[in-house]
Amino acid sequence: MRSLPPDGPRVIRDETGAQTLLGYVVDIRAEDGSARCWLEIEGKHGNRHGGLHGGIIACMIDNAMGYAAARSFDDSGQTRVRTLSMTTNFVAPAAQGVVHAVGRVSGGGRGTAFTEGELVDEAGAVLATATGVYKRVKGG
Amino acid sequence: MRSLPPDGPRVIRDETGAQTLLGYVVDIRAEDGSARCWLEIEGKHGNRHGGLHGGIIACMIDNAMGYAAARSFDDSGQTRVRTLSMTTNFVAPAAQGVVHAVGRVSGGGRGTAFTEGELVDEAGAVLATATGVYKRVKGG
Amino acid sequence: MRSLPPDGPRVIRDETGAQTLLGYVVDIRAEDGSARCWLEIEGKHGNRHGGLHGGIIACMIDNAMGYAAARSFDDSGQTRVRTLSMTTNFVAPAAQGVVHAVGRVSGGGRGTAFTEGELVDEAGAVLATATGVYKRVKGG
Amino acid sequence: MRSLPPDGPRVIRDETGAQTLLGYVVDIRAEDGSARCWLEIEGKHGNRHGGLHGGIIACMIDNAMGYAAARSFDDSGQTRVRTLSMTTNFVAPAAQGVVHAVGRVSGGGRGTAFTEGELVDEAGAVLATATGVYKRVKGG
Repeated sequence: MRSLPPDGPRVIRDETGAQTLLGYVVDIRAEDGSARCWLEIEGKHGNRHGGLHGGIIACMIDNAMGYAAARSFDDSGQTRVRTLSMTTNFVAPAAQGVVHAVGRVSGGGRGTAFTEGELVDEAGAVLATATGVYKRVKGG
Repeated sequence: MRSLPPDGPRVIRDETGAQTLLGYVVDIRAEDGSARCWLEIEGKHGNRHGGLHGGIIACMIDNAMGYAAARSFDDSGQTRVRTLSMTTNFVAPAAQGVVHAVGRVSGGGRGTAFTEGELVDEAGAVLATATGVYKRVKGG
Repeated sequence: MRSLPPDGPRVIRDETGAQTLLGYVVDIRAEDGSARCWLEIEGKHGNRHGGLHGGIIACMIDNAMGYAAARSFDDSGQTRVRTLSMTTNFVAPAAQGVVHAVGRVSGGGRGTAFTEGELVDEAGAVLATATGVYKRVKGG
Repeated sequence: MRSLPPDGPRVIRDETGAQTLLGYVVDIRAEDGSARCWLEIEGKHGNRHGGLHGGIIACMIDNAMGYAAARSFDDSGQTRVRTLSMTTNFVAPAAQGVVHAVGRVSGGGRGTAFTEGELVDEAGAVLATATGVYKRVKGG
């Protein structure tokens, strides 16, 4: 995909301070329960090597996995979840274009969701892979 | 500590796009080879729960561990390193004040550094812990 | 699958002390470069809850990912690789039957391989997921 | 330390099938709530490089962190806990002698414990580092 998703139902912009600051777009339209997080790379996202900062990569995959975890409890994605642990592997650098993270649930139960995620570029190349453990926030 | 480090040698501001955007300060003054990354939490750093976004937590610890890894090759911290893998455990939420990440090297060799890191608040409470593996970039 | 693979080419038994002790079987027959590690669960593999010990789960996935990493350098699987880092998520317990780990390479280069793996039971249910980073041992 | 702990209170041998098979000794004598897991390396613990198998390293640190997690809920160490996620970094190889893993709790709450661990050799050199997330098993 070469562009960010258009406005519409289940496409989330500017929900949090961090989202507005970084400029990513969350997309929970997929019918299989997965979630996506999109970003158009700009200079403000750069690291010391001129590539997308690893922290922002982790941030995007965390968002995608977190929304997938939330959807595993309630498909609206509104259930509050908390990241317990996340591992990110930085497979290849990214410098420009539109990238997106995909998050999916690989298992879990009433209160815990295990997830996997990846960040891919416009050509579908895998830039990073991740796994995470999310906990449902009581009352959330 | 209740405030960001003052300007001075080995205190790094605005080195990259991501650093300017997020507003963190890198601090490699410690004589033991460790590195720190400081942030004063603002609304723009927030997640859905009103706390510091997990992606920004990961970003800060990655910076601290990465500079510690760089210092293990050359104390100036200028050696280029790349994060291969990073795991972050989110121990407790943070909502306000000045937080800082500390990164240390736990082992490694000529081309690889194993690191550990944590994020602590002003009172010294541990908010997150992490480990990482960094690779020296050839020619860097 | 309900049984361990039969003896034959690219099915590896008793290669190391740990393999003989634990009794797992390595299987690098797949043409897609993946690797498998099989075990028939016995009482001697048990944890405090009567399930397969998490350390043995990690061991099996490490074997499968490590052989897949080795195959990414040389399809014979004989290239020596070293695990730099591995994360295991314990999705569901296993108590009996034949389980197997699958390892695949998700990226990398001349000296490093990024992998993903999982442990599944006879019915195909996912019991654990993992990611790893492997390094080619020079001269190996 | 150059030898396994002697029999006595809070020194645990042969509690599970896996423990008897691998031959490690759990030690929860420390008054600070940490836990240790000891092993005298033998040929049966070896990997393809003649060193201690990474899966056994992960197993030992998981044991040490798991008992530390259990002690955080009840100092007897008898509370049942389950590993949700564990990351192990393999800092240096080990080939002989007595090694031990140490596990400590870095935070958590009523139902979750975040841990850190390491494996060290007789000279105190760090061979592996780890973090983990453990969950209290209800009714355990």
